[in-house]
Amino acid sequence: MPVPTVEWKNNRLKVIDQSVLPHRLRFICCNSVKSVWDIIREMKIRGAPLLGVAAAYGVYLGVRNSKKNLFKDLERTIKYLSTSRPTARNLFWALEGMKKIAYAHRKEPAGKIKKILLEEAERILEEDKEICRKIGKFGKHLIKNNDRILTHCNAGGLATADYGTALGVIFTSHREKKKIRVYVDETRPVLQGARLTTWELMREGIDTTLICDNTAAHLMAKGEIDKVIVGADRIAKNGDTANKIGTYNLALLAHYHEIPFYVAAPTSTIDVRIKSGKDITIEERGADEVRKIGNTYIAPKRVKVLNPAFDVTPNRFITAIVTEKGILHKPFARSIKKVI
Amino acid sequence: MPVPTVEWKNNRLKVIDQSVLPHRLRFICCNSVKSVWDIIREMKIRGAPLLGVAAAYGVYLGVRNSKKNLFKDLERTIKYLSTSRPTARNLFWALEGMKKIAYAHRKEPAGKIKKILLEEAERILEEDKEICRKIGKFGKHLIKNNDRILTHCNAGGLATADYGTALGVIFTSHREKKKIRVYVDETRPVLQGARLTTWELMREGIDTTLICDNTAAHLMAKGEIDKVIVGADRIAKNGDTANKIGTYNLALLAHYHEIPFYVAAPTSTIDVRIKSGKDITIEERGADEVRKIGNTYIAPKRVKVLNPAFDVTPNRFITAIVTEKGILHKPFARSIKKVI
Repeated sequence: MPVPTVEWKNNRLKVIDQSVLPHRLRFICCNSVKSVWDIIREMKIRGAPLLGVAAAYGVYLGVRNSKKNLFKDLERTIKYLSTSRPTARNLFWALEGMKKIAYAHRKEPAGKIKKILLEEAERILEEDKEICRKIGKFGKHLIKNNDRILTHCNAGGLATADYGTALGVIFTSHREKKKIRVYVDETRPVLQGARLTTWELMREGIDTTLICDNTAAHLMAKGEIDKVIVGADRIAKNGDTANKIGTYNLALLAHYHEIPFYVAAPTSTIDVRIKSGKDITIEERGADEVRKIGNTYIAPKRVKVLNPAFDVTPNRFITAIVTEKGILHKPFARSIKKVI
Repeated sequence: MPVPTVEWKNNRLKVIDQSVLPHRLRFICCNSVKSVWDIIREMKIRGAPLLGVAAAYGVYLGVRNSKKNLFKDLERTIKYLSTSRPTARNLFWALEGMKKIAYAHRKEPAGKIKKILLEEAERILEEDKEICRKIGKFGKHLIKNNDRILTHCNAGGLATADYGTALGVIFTSHREKKKIRVYVDETRPVLQGARLTTWELMREGIDTTLICDNTAAHLMAKGEIDKVIVGADRIAKNGDTANKIGTYNLALLAHYHEIPFYVAAPTSTIDVRIKSGKDITIEERGADEVRKIGNTYIAPKRVKVLNPAFDVTPNRFITAIVTEKGILHKPFARSIKKVI
């Protein structure tokens, strides 16, 4: 990504406002934990790894002006940020990491602890970049020359601190001169595929075709899709994977059409305390996300809506999980255990 | 439908402009074959049975001012209308019917033949109303009290001259006091589900919930869907069914989750000259239907798009086909033969 999705600049967290892409490239600077909470909640930033990075800086922003009760402020900040969005594991993983490092240095002066927290957020950001590279490096072996790849939502640079997880695999393969065509699900209701993934792929000069979410089965039946690769928001101990709504749909279709279905995600997305997908909390979002596009109502204003932001793909429909520690194969309960 | 979707009034074809629903109820009056072609092409009207009715009136409009060469004008009109949209069988069925009746009376004076053509169009309209009632009457037996039904696109009053095929089954069941909940796929890109089906169902006081097209699998996995019912644009001799893009997707998902999947359509949708679905012509529509919603671009302006308007559901994924002549069961090759 020539334009960083997220950076720490002038003592503020600077991010791309993803809600106005692809037509405007606008930045948001956050200098309070409230503003970080808001941009997460309102999906001005999204993508599980990016939410982890932002949450880490959010913790620092929540305590940097703390006068007396640093740890009380820390606890309150973490509790507050954890209410922003429920499903992405990385957000909680980052909050836990920040808390842990603070407590590990609890004997230090407050100023020192604050400094350590900022450094830890920076470390998480840098680590995420490294993770993207490694996922790309491992994942590229799954991609063949002339592959036609379908992806859903956005697991690219805009979902991470670097060039993405699922898209990282695609970018790495493309840079190594493999000829690839990518079909992008538009990904209703927030249209991350139509708005973000197409934008990222086209900037890299990758052959990109946008489709509606309901079109994948038709393309698969015609033999137009060689593999599917998506990101993840939370992966259970057994490999069941929560990701953007529509992922389970694709996984089932891929399974029926005997097309490999890959998940690409950092190991920080894996939640070993969750045994299986049925225990993953699925965020329900507001009705107007579906009723409206932009400011325009596309449906009756008072129609009831069901708008789950994620779904869960059972492990049996996943061919492999690409992580920064290598490619995990079935049985995932065992391969996950080895890397966590 | 308290408001007729289509009627012949003051020597013009009067239809609801479906492109501005649900926010505006606007009518279009056509007094030329060109205007009928335009509203079909631009999808101001859509729905296979309705296209049949409109095409029939279009034939009359194309010849009513014919001076010398009535049959030359007739042939040209029919050829022209057949280029409006390629997939809906009913459109061609109506054109063939109009042609046949004209030739059956070729010895009559031109004025008489014109009158016969107008009467035939009127008969097709009235017959479509009767067909909707019969489909409702047969189909209602498939619906149980407390059923949660998923439908895709719009196979309602707006797709026919009366109260619809798939929705006709739902309306009939509702009027007979069965408690039903209906989930409606928004149906990208033209949003017939979000705009039209919700509007029709809510006017009848039916419990209606709008979902994005990518959400059905998630609901099925949760046990929230009891049956799926959709319309059809063209049914092959073996039962393979072309319908709005996304239908095959739903049929596969229903099959996996062991949920009955019904098609409701008049027998005029069946094309016995087509052996199987792979011979059905699938219309490809313009890229901006996907890139834009209303006047707003939701994707990069130059992104490539694949926008097939229909897909084909193989007969093995269809539980039964509800027609005005009864419910057709498998093997469809045999049950179709009995009614055609």
